[in-house]
Amino acid sequence: MLQKIPSLNQLVHELSRLPGVGPKTAQRLAYYILRSPNDFVQSLRDALKGVKERVHDCPLCFAFTEEDDLCHFCKDPMRSDDILCVVEDPADIERVESSGVFRGRYHVLHGAISPLDGINPQDLKIQALLDRLKPGQEVILALDADLEGDTTVLYLAKILKDMNIKASRIAHGVPIGGDIDYIDYRTLGRAIENRVQV
Amino acid sequence: MLQKIPSLNQLVHELSRLPGVGPKTAQRLAYYILRSPNDFVQSLRDALKGVKERVHDCPLCFAFTEEDDLCHFCKDPMRSDDILCVVEDPADIERVESSGVFRGRYHVLHGAISPLDGINPQDLKIQALLDRLKPGQEVILALDADLEGDTTVLYLAKILKDMNIKASRIAHGVPIGGDIDYIDYRTLGRAIENRVQV
Repeated sequence: MLQKIPSLNQLVHELSRLPGVGPKTAQRLAYYILRSPNDFVQSLRDALKGVKERVHDCPLCFAFTEEDDLCHFCKDPMRSDDILCVVEDPADIERVESSGVFRGRYHVLHGAISPLDGINPQDLKIQALLDRLKPGQEVILALDADLEGDTTVLYLAKILKDMNIKASRIAHGVPIGGDIDYIDYRTLGRAIENRVQV
Repeated sequence: MLQKIPSLNQLVHELSRLPGVGPKTAQRLAYYILRSPNDFVQSLRDALKGVKERVHDCPLCFAFTEEDDLCHFCKDPMRSDDILCVVEDPADIERVESSGVFRGRYHVLHGAISPLDGINPQDLKIQALLDRLKPGQEVILALDADLEGDTTVLYLAKILKDMNIKASRIAHGVPIGGDIDYIDYRTLGRAIENRVQV
């Protein structure tokens, strides 16, 4: 049937380009949208337009913002300039914020080094990070615990050491509430290496 | 952070109104959209507009169509008028078609009887179904195997019997490739009752 309804077909095609949306989900969403009131579809379209028009990168930390100048993290006088948290993606800031333990500034790399995907240090906001660092500042690398995150940490650690900047990486280990039975051996190995005296 | 970016917030809100999209997924999609090229967002917006503007119900069978008059199922001269498959939703036609065993016409009820949800026979395309039935036509009820589907089958079966229309319901049983170990007892019970001689 879909073959005979080009505009439904087109919507399924567009939706299935979204991450985690397979052809079945795209079809289900398209049928739902088709049966939704016009004003829902209109507000979804407006919202799509809104983010693209109004949201941009903060020129200092590269987090998403709607502010004309710096983002509210960079402007907030209550946050400390002494410590900088480096993340891969703007969405990661949300996670760090929700932990409630960090009150410094952020810097978004917009990715991680991955030579296989053709992502080299100059493709990331690394030079901008180095440019904004001041002597005595501390850097926390809150990067993903995968190959790309590890590569980026190694790369940055070397440069930061040469610059005499104190750098640390967030700890890997058993998640809170995690059952040791279900933890993979690499995480458990790291948790044992990084054991904390009690 | 989201609180400080109203248009991102708004997009997350709109996306999370879609079925099966929770707040986490909506946020992931919103960030993806924010980082997508403008032309992807534009074509998604166009596709959303397109379905609402061009797709409508076929006036005879109530399937979705873009045709000005009847849908291609109703117009197709190669399909038999002798047999009619009744489904709950337009999307169900796709499933029946993919089985490849049905070459008759369709009729979409746009729901199933559910007094608890306030959906009564007159809210469905039941009168339209009865109006189009001709003596000698056969009806296959391909409704869901849930309470609402069962209720609708019972309701229609009685009326169709009074009209002397031959009606059947699609079989319930163990899915092809299904392991009996994992089938629920009600399905298995039905499969045993409806056993087929070999």
